Amino acid sequence: MGSSFHHFILVILCSSCLLGAVAAASSPKTRHFRWEVANMFWSPDCLENVVMGINGQFPGPTIRAKAGDTIVVHLTNKLHTEGLVIHWHGIRQFDTPWADGTASISQCAINPEETFVYRFKVDKAGTYFYHGHYGMQRSAGLYGSLVVDVADGEKEPFHYDGEFNVLLSDWWHKNVHEQEVGLSSKPLRWIGEPQSILLNGRGQFNCSLAARLGNGSSSLCSLRADAQCAPQVLRVKPNKTYRLRIASTTSLSSLNLAIGNPSKNYWISVSQRGRKPPVPPPGLTILNYLPNSPSVPTSALPHSPAWDDITASKSFANKIVALLGLPTPPIRHDRRIFMLNTQNRIDGFIKWSINNISLVLPSTPYLGSIKYKLKGAFDNKSPPETFSSNYDIRIPPVNPNATQSSGIYKIEFNTTVDVILQNTNALAANVSEIHPWHLHGHDFWVLGYGEGKYSEEKHGKQLNLKNPPLRNTVVIFPYGWTVIRFVADNPGVWAFHCHIEPHLHMGMGVIFAEAVDRVKNIPDEAIACGQTGKMFVHNHHG
Amino acid sequence: MGSSFHHFILVILCSSCLLGAVAAASSPKTRHFRWEVANMFWSPDCLENVVMGINGQFPGPTIRAKAGDTIVVHLTNKLHTEGLVIHWHGIRQFDTPWADGTASISQCAINPEETFVYRFKVDKAGTYFYHGHYGMQRSAGLYGSLVVDVADGEKEPFHYDGEFNVLLSDWWHKNVHEQEVGLSSKPLRWIGEPQSILLNGRGQFNCSLAARLGNGSSSLCSLRADAQCAPQVLRVKPNKTYRLRIASTTSLSSLNLAIGNPSKNYWISVSQRGRKPPVPPPGLTILNYLPNSPSVPTSALPHSPAWDDITASKSFANKIVALLGLPTPPIRHDRRIFMLNTQNRIDGFIKWSINNISLVLPSTPYLGSIKYKLKGAFDNKSPPETFSSNYDIRIPPVNPNATQSSGIYKIEFNTTVDVILQNTNALAANVSEIHPWHLHGHDFWVLGYGEGKYSEEKHGKQLNLKNPPLRNTVVIFPYGWTVIRFVADNPGVWAFHCHIEPHLHMGMGVIFAEAVDRVKNIPDEAIACGQTGKMFVHNHHG
Repeated sequence: MGSSFHHFILVILCSSCLLGAVAAASSPKTRHFRWEVANMFWSPDCLENVVMGINGQFPGPTIRAKAGDTIVVHLTNKLHTEGLVIHWHGIRQFDTPWADGTASISQCAINPEETFVYRFKVDKAGTYFYHGHYGMQRSAGLYGSLVVDVADGEKEPFHYDGEFNVLLSDWWHKNVHEQEVGLSSKPLRWIGEPQSILLNGRGQFNCSLAARLGNGSSSLCSLRADAQCAPQVLRVKPNKTYRLRIASTTSLSSLNLAIGNPSKNYWISVSQRGRKPPVPPPGLTILNYLPNSPSVPTSALPHSPAWDDITASKSFANKIVALLGLPTPPIRHDRRIFMLNTQNRIDGFIKWSINNISLVLPSTPYLGSIKYKLKGAFDNKSPPETFSSNYDIRIPPVNPNATQSSGIYKIEFNTTVDVILQNTNALAANVSEIHPWHLHGHDFWVLGYGEGKYSEEKHGKQLNLKNPPLRNTVVIFPYGWTVIRFVADNPGVWAFHCHIEPHLHMGMGVIFAEAVDRVKNIPDEAIACGQTGKMFVHNHHG
Repeated sequence: MGSSFHHFILVILCSSCLLGAVAAASSPKTRHFRWEVANMFWSPDCLENVVMGINGQFPGPTIRAKAGDTIVVHLTNKLHTEGLVIHWHGIRQFDTPWADGTASISQCAINPEETFVYRFKVDKAGTYFYHGHYGMQRSAGLYGSLVVDVADGEKEPFHYDGEFNVLLSDWWHKNVHEQEVGLSSKPLRWIGEPQSILLNGRGQFNCSLAARLGNGSSSLCSLRADAQCAPQVLRVKPNKTYRLRIASTTSLSSLNLAIGNPSKNYWISVSQRGRKPPVPPPGLTILNYLPNSPSVPTSALPHSPAWDDITASKSFANKIVALLGLPTPPIRHDRRIFMLNTQNRIDGFIKWSINNISLVLPSTPYLGSIKYKLKGAFDNKSPPETFSSNYDIRIPPVNPNATQSSGIYKIEFNTTVDVILQNTNALAANVSEIHPWHLHGHDFWVLGYGEGKYSEEKHGKQLNLKNPPLRNTVVIFPYGWTVIRFVADNPGVWAFHCHIEPHLHMGMGVIFAEAVDRVKNIPDEAIACGQTGKMFVHNHHG
């Protein structure tokens, strides 16, 4: 954060910190939602485009619930030819692994005109979000906020007087089908940087508030207040405390967020980090002090770290520790998986791989094919647990070849698993990217980040077992490593992957099959496709 | 045809005429094809775009077979999020109604990474084509030629020395997803005229050979001969006879085809008819006389009828009669269905309707839901058999409201059915469009075309029962009527619809459920979705 706060106090509880108390048993509710997903014309950044919306809204409707509640979403696909699923990012789906919303992993894609019912418990207060998890439908605009308040009778760890949702995303003018073709082409055509950064689905392409400001103009870009791209003004009262619920559903951009110095109107500025210019102009919105009327702040944009100031990012990341009193991780691991993140060539196509295996998803969801022990639904061979000890992470891969596979890591119930994510140099010299890794079905403890190649001897004792933050997403910094630990207490099939959508599309992920024999009562409609579908048909005929 | 022929004789057997003999039993073959459908970058009209291709080709591979052969296409969906099907236009699918390739009608859409096997017999020689029949995937480029030669030992009715495939199509620069959103928007955003007319997948946008010619230039538009948009040159020898196998898979355009006067190089020109300018420039290709080398003809473009010269079209249509000796229609009909083609508003959305019913397809394919007598899979109520006798077809509909329905016409086995297609004025005054109606699963006899409103008294005796052409597609002219007759000898569920893809998308079609109780052995994989899928699952659990 490149800002200081005087007139009001800001409490930021980001989605990945997942602070908050476990639900008390008092009066949990079942909350029903009926959603229809369709493409529609929309102008997220003042330029009209086709956007995937829910019930005619972009971003989709915000779900608000209390810890312990059950959410029921009747999701109807009103697309013409595309399937879809929705993943509830950060919700662990205890006892409902089929509701995790990952196509080919936890369920079949929902076909056009079909309705699938997601029913799951939100057991932990926090700021979450949801998004498409099929093809590149997140980039197409399929996302929204999910906010879970503490249960009745429970208290948030901090006091605040008001709050705002700030859902961050990045936006391209090229449609996702064209993006996908580019990613699957030889030579690769990279999607490029986004055209705009959106706050709550609003940005201003080619009409940037920041650019105007640079030119000394204070025009609000002639935006009508009711324009779909008009920045949302966050209106606050002096001397009150506000919580910003920040969640980022970006497909590519890693972000810095800065808030301006006090005046009648503040800037909130969100800028891209870790990727070379030309980068999109910062996404902006305005914090307005009541009783003043909102206007474009006359101050300069607040200072953000430069895009390549990774030191600032690391320093920020390293400062985050868990709230006192939260459970600490088990002191020993039962298993440790080293994951080398490499960029590779397979038949001349550029892919991302883990230990030289690039993930391809099977047509039959793993949850059904593993549960019902179907043969040949995915690659039998598990991916390696480690990589060659003499791999030089500072140079492009000496042997850039990799293999595509749908193989899985089998995880025993209630074991403690460490993953050591090891970043490397990409195919081009002197390039190593930030990758945000997201684990489904669990929170994990972040035991540490470091430079270069992880060495147990050198780094093992630096790991934080005292108050490591509990998260579901963590970055690996360029040429660095990150160690996480989780307890395999949630039977199901869970993706662990780079949350950059085009990277996942290019194979950057792995699958954990966790005690699937303990999964009971998978709803048939979740897995009635591919080989599980055939099994039902076969049994039908006896 | 606006052309005369001197140096060579042209035999045009168009796909809709379907002349040719029924297969002899001699040595029919089974021909296997393995196809993968994927989006790819392609430049159909010199401008790069995303095109739906088959095995990396656009248009898809040509299928060539002999009458009596069995075609087996292993079709794998390599799209990322979209389902697909392929319809074999003109193939009647006797005993294989599940292979007709109509999503929601004859089968479930094939999901990404799935393979569906189309297996069907081609019993009649002729020029056919295939195309996507889900959403607007035909407009996206999913099509190709299917040519059936006479069986061994049989002879074509005309002699010829050589032949060429000429597959015609129209092409938009806007992707079909955006087109679909426009068609489903309020107010409607019409797709507009195509940017290019393609011959065998090749056109020249903004670089029109015709435009160049108009400017006195004879440059071939600086096209490299290996450019994806370079016109194909048809090379012929003097004094030989060539067959042009013409098929049109256009999504919107009705076409006139003209061939230039003789010189070393001829123009073949294809221009749009029946829709107001600005229309796309004519699609062009070159007929080259050997041993001359191909070059851009120095002659003017051959004369085509003007876009609004419907008289020429009618006169041409009325001249087509069946080859002597082909079976004539039954002299009496058992049932007659009048179908009023209207443009309507439903909740403010613009739709097309038949007898004020706009077709919406159910999520469960009719073939399975009717066969297995599933309740509630589609609207129980059948659409009306006729329309009000005092409907004024010369003015916009007095009551523009219509209803959406998935209801069906049930057709008894072996009955003779007449359909009287009645054109009308659209929503705007003084507009009546050409609509090409296509029947699946059958050929039909075209008994006649006429002006104004059909009246049995006035027109009944003019109908041609002697030598009406046998077709699978027929137009209704503006403010006109067309009468067709078919024998319901093919159990299955068959679409009968306007072949303009956006019109079908807007509801312009009906469903004939023909003696479905006689359909045997539907492959489960064709219908394992929606309610039929649920039925299999239910039975699986006993």
